[in-house]
Amino acid sequence: MIDLISDTATRPSPEMRRFMAEAPVGDEQLGEDPSVNRLQEMVAELTGKEAALFLPSGTMCNIIGIKLHTQPGDKIVLERHAHPFTSEAGGPGLLAGVMTHLVDGVRGVFTPQQVEEAAQPGDGIHTPPTTLVCIENTHNRGGGKIWPLETLEAVADKAHDLGLKVHLDGARLLNAVVATGIPAHVWCAKMDTCWIDLSKGLGCPVGAVLAGDRETIRRARRYKQMFGGAMRQAGIIAAAGIYALQHNVERLAEDHANARLLATGLAEIPGIAIDPDEVETNIVFFDVAGTGRTAQEINQALIGHGVRMGAVGRTRMRAVTHLDVSRADIERAVEVMRMVVAGAR
Amino acid sequence: MIDLISDTATRPSPEMRRFMAEAPVGDEQLGEDPSVNRLQEMVAELTGKEAALFLPSGTMCNIIGIKLHTQPGDKIVLERHAHPFTSEAGGPGLLAGVMTHLVDGVRGVFTPQQVEEAAQPGDGIHTPPTTLVCIENTHNRGGGKIWPLETLEAVADKAHDLGLKVHLDGARLLNAVVATGIPAHVWCAKMDTCWIDLSKGLGCPVGAVLAGDRETIRRARRYKQMFGGAMRQAGIIAAAGIYALQHNVERLAEDHANARLLATGLAEIPGIAIDPDEVETNIVFFDVAGTGRTAQEINQALIGHGVRMGAVGRTRMRAVTHLDVSRADIERAVEVMRMVVAGAR
Amino acid sequence: MIDLISDTATRPSPEMRRFMAEAPVGDEQLGEDPSVNRLQEMVAELTGKEAALFLPSGTMCNIIGIKLHTQPGDKIVLERHAHPFTSEAGGPGLLAGVMTHLVDGVRGVFTPQQVEEAAQPGDGIHTPPTTLVCIENTHNRGGGKIWPLETLEAVADKAHDLGLKVHLDGARLLNAVVATGIPAHVWCAKMDTCWIDLSKGLGCPVGAVLAGDRETIRRARRYKQMFGGAMRQAGIIAAAGIYALQHNVERLAEDHANARLLATGLAEIPGIAIDPDEVETNIVFFDVAGTGRTAQEINQALIGHGVRMGAVGRTRMRAVTHLDVSRADIERAVEVMRMVVAGAR
Amino acid sequence: MIDLISDTATRPSPEMRRFMAEAPVGDEQLGEDPSVNRLQEMVAELTGKEAALFLPSGTMCNIIGIKLHTQPGDKIVLERHAHPFTSEAGGPGLLAGVMTHLVDGVRGVFTPQQVEEAAQPGDGIHTPPTTLVCIENTHNRGGGKIWPLETLEAVADKAHDLGLKVHLDGARLLNAVVATGIPAHVWCAKMDTCWIDLSKGLGCPVGAVLAGDRETIRRARRYKQMFGGAMRQAGIIAAAGIYALQHNVERLAEDHANARLLATGLAEIPGIAIDPDEVETNIVFFDVAGTGRTAQEINQALIGHGVRMGAVGRTRMRAVTHLDVSRADIERAVEVMRMVVAGAR
Repeated sequence: MIDLISDTATRPSPEMRRFMAEAPVGDEQLGEDPSVNRLQEMVAELTGKEAALFLPSGTMCNIIGIKLHTQPGDKIVLERHAHPFTSEAGGPGLLAGVMTHLVDGVRGVFTPQQVEEAAQPGDGIHTPPTTLVCIENTHNRGGGKIWPLETLEAVADKAHDLGLKVHLDGARLLNAVVATGIPAHVWCAKMDTCWIDLSKGLGCPVGAVLAGDRETIRRARRYKQMFGGAMRQAGIIAAAGIYALQHNVERLAEDHANARLLATGLAEIPGIAIDPDEVETNIVFFDVAGTGRTAQEINQALIGHGVRMGAVGRTRMRAVTHLDVSRADIERAVEVMRMVVAGAR
Repeated sequence: MIDLISDTATRPSPEMRRFMAEAPVGDEQLGEDPSVNRLQEMVAELTGKEAALFLPSGTMCNIIGIKLHTQPGDKIVLERHAHPFTSEAGGPGLLAGVMTHLVDGVRGVFTPQQVEEAAQPGDGIHTPPTTLVCIENTHNRGGGKIWPLETLEAVADKAHDLGLKVHLDGARLLNAVVATGIPAHVWCAKMDTCWIDLSKGLGCPVGAVLAGDRETIRRARRYKQMFGGAMRQAGIIAAAGIYALQHNVERLAEDHANARLLATGLAEIPGIAIDPDEVETNIVFFDVAGTGRTAQEINQALIGHGVRMGAVGRTRMRAVTHLDVSRADIERAVEVMRMVVAGAR
Repeated sequence: MIDLISDTATRPSPEMRRFMAEAPVGDEQLGEDPSVNRLQEMVAELTGKEAALFLPSGTMCNIIGIKLHTQPGDKIVLERHAHPFTSEAGGPGLLAGVMTHLVDGVRGVFTPQQVEEAAQPGDGIHTPPTTLVCIENTHNRGGGKIWPLETLEAVADKAHDLGLKVHLDGARLLNAVVATGIPAHVWCAKMDTCWIDLSKGLGCPVGAVLAGDRETIRRARRYKQMFGGAMRQAGIIAAAGIYALQHNVERLAEDHANARLLATGLAEIPGIAIDPDEVETNIVFFDVAGTGRTAQEINQALIGHGVRMGAVGRTRMRAVTHLDVSRADIERAVEVMRMVVAGAR
Repeated sequence: MIDLISDTATRPSPEMRRFMAEAPVGDEQLGEDPSVNRLQEMVAELTGKEAALFLPSGTMCNIIGIKLHTQPGDKIVLERHAHPFTSEAGGPGLLAGVMTHLVDGVRGVFTPQQVEEAAQPGDGIHTPPTTLVCIENTHNRGGGKIWPLETLEAVADKAHDLGLKVHLDGARLLNAVVATGIPAHVWCAKMDTCWIDLSKGLGCPVGAVLAGDRETIRRARRYKQMFGGAMRQAGIIAAAGIYALQHNVERLAEDHANARLLATGLAEIPGIAIDPDEVETNIVFFDVAGTGRTAQEINQALIGHGVRMGAVGRTRMRAVTHLDVSRADIERAVEVMRMVVAGAR
């Protein structure tokens, strides 16, 4: 199966498995796991922060990030299609008690003006305080869109001027890094907390790492415990992260080239609507309305021929390139899609 | 002082005070307060519901309404300027743990399509369930806008089709009733819960009444207790509601006429931007940018001449007519505004 | 009906009603209600605090007190039969997210040692922080028990030494004041927040007043708004509090004498177990197991003869004296009980 | 270092590491990880439940168990030293909004009568509903105490009679199984949810598994996602659990023998207070007051000689035996303790 459903589909390679199997470990709740500690130091350095914390998932990075900067009853500013609003099971409401001030972005990117409007100061009694802005870079639902650095910085500056904190959902931050050449620490410089995912393009089985200043990460450790994310000899899985940061970052460029190849190929198929120029990283969104069939139907047909993508709307589909998908796989996927669509018409 | 800051500014009349002072009372927590019971029956009948519950404020009606129909972690659909989002101190987040799915209305009115988009069913794991739609009629920030009945019904039908409940913030529902001639029970027929405020146009000092089916109101009593809204011999203040429903409903038409008079008067003052045709009930929004002064400055000047309005943005102002403001007061207010603006230019 | 079910059963007297009907009022959300403001000043002075806040109920005083001093995830120390744990609908859990560290008191009174054990410092990751001690004085379920002043002070000192705050549920604090001659401001001196109820022995229909330092009460106003306790022309009901503080405090001594009279009378009835020496204020607990009937049965029989008490366990009953119950009523109540019990045996 | 600080100190053996490195994996969020699925089936069968769910920690099992059976504002019954109350960072308050009704057990064991008293039905308005009983077996702070099966069943029956659910914290359930010969599915038969830990005596690096009926576990998956416990190719770590259930259960008997040996040895050291007959499984509590030194001091001295235990009170210590501690290690630990205490006196 050529699995383009998500870059979370990557499986650990034999080399990564071997590295994990040999990892030195200890009890991470006591701060005694050397592999966890080393990974945390690597991510702190990568992002230019004082400290970092290994967590079982990116969702836990987001909810802890929100908890760290807010009180129940606060408002947070985030884009209408941001992951914490659409895909984290309602955690920001149930776990953090925050109200979501949705802003409408352009492919996930919004402006300092929108932050300013959202954060109008109140009378202290009626108006809920707005205390946090969440940015997602690259933006998944925006098609792997990379924020313009100056916009991201301007949004952060505006937020800070207004007394708000800024949290970066960097599930695919390294895709932005590789695509632009701008280092992670530059992207993160104005972020109060930020995180990278290990189980997406980096190819690890489990985990994500949250970074911030020392005091913030100290507080984050209590939430890690509370939410049930504190493990024991977690070095086994943290080791995969060490390996991936050493071996799997630069190669994200291949995923981007593959995504562009896929987009270009799909654009030539009648009935598929897509603008290849919008594909900046490893995510490809397109619409199959012109084929006369639904996304679900197309995907079922693809699966029958050994290719899986995602149906994310009635006629909207998503394909994501990653470590386990080669250039030849992409060529095959385009060919299969052409066949399926031809059969459909 | 001609106080147009809000219709909450009304003070109980001597007749209302006398009626309150003579009210029979008991312990409402035991269900033994005859005046509370009578008021609840009156509002249940008015709204066409099985039962009703007297509460100390409209804000408590809203938060209890939200609690009744949601679980923490759910999403609720409401207009971007709805009162629970803008003006209830973050209660929906802190007290109900719900995430706010904001929709952009036209003067507060939104469509069944917007409900449908907001309530897309999820996979049961990632997507938070959407369980409630909140409607505000008339819509305060929409300028006292009355929902078209068919739109309100279509939104409710769509919500119910999708398995969502509908809550009506009827703080000024009786203004809609008087302005349109459509009875409250028709407006409320498709609402799962609805409420009217006593301390706005009705002229009572305190309170609001939430209505719904018997089982829902039974559950609401627990929240009333929990939030601290359960009083004792509350009949004293409930009596004002009884009096107001008997004497102060039809006269809301005068407030509407006064609001229209005010709008027309303001429209003639150079530098003030307003469309009198948008004034459907007792709320008048206008912009003073053309005067060269801020809303705050204009309001301070007005106050110096015995007229108070509200500054609700840099150059946006709001005036609300009510029981304690006569036609002559409105004429005087226009005259004062003309003078203030003239001085400003 | 001689109603001994609770001192919440008091009804406003004609004089109190008249005083309310004539009260000057304004919008309390704007801080413009002169009667509310005056009552708040009176209670601040009475308790020796900088500021006070009028609220619709004692339950709201308790939950706001808890919110003011805690974060969700904290532990609070309170006696096993304290009102917020037993009788506030789960608000401390749902609204404040705190875990209840129950201590076993003697008639509601606990010790500094118990506070110390409950508040053991943790490792910052696993152990939830303990941040608040709640005291109830007089203690309702403890039979109207008055805390020894030195114990109350020692508990508060210990709490403060450990970095905890102290909240006083003073629903019946004035009973303790009148019974001991120790002024309210002495009882409250070491309390971070404290409150008195208006609708119990003081005979008002509605309300309670929370006191504390200026900054704490400023923060409390936001919670008042959020929980739905912010009213409008609340001076009407606040006025009853002003009247009661001027006229109904000293006379609580009569309630205490009546309670003692009732206890002494009941003690002479075969089958009723009671120690009159434990009756320090206006609450009388006793057991009817010796009569061969349940509390429920006895109470039903009493009601048939125009006397109502409360059944608070299988064979445990409670009677509370108050403003609307005279010495003659008590004598009659004892007589009826004697008759009922005689019939029972 | 002979590390007796906890059985969480176990490190994966070479065989376990090899098994993990070869595990088949997939995306567990899609239900496609064969190792996770297999582990879940094994635990479901072991506990006699319909379904099970792999989670990153026992703390997540507890908080999800509590969420599954309660609503915010409910009370839960648990022993004063139960893990969710003492050691889960306040999660039951912050995440579940429940109030903790503490009961005092005998070494962690409580009675049906205590459940009955805690769960008195209320009036539906004031009294918070009690909806869950939590049992911990073996009980950590009770010294690894095994519940008598009949008491555990009687507590569960009483709970169910009263309409409450029962959740079993089985972090060390397999110790009870091996020590008594009573199979896990018998211990769990009357439990609504139950779980076992993989990272304690079983020697796995990470994880725990929650079991219950199919519908309950389906609901648990949403909370797993929300709390951030949903991983991707988690089969790598789940595989350790498969290995441990096949190889590391019966050998827990050695840990129990070692614990008894340790207790007997310590009992012979003057100044150490301990009753070896209370050591039923792998946990040994003792008091060092008689040595004239604090637990902290004793532990520091032990560490200097290559033995680590835990200081859990001023003079109270805990030692836990496990997979990485041999009989010879225990003999050495006793010898070192004898030396340290001798030096102390």
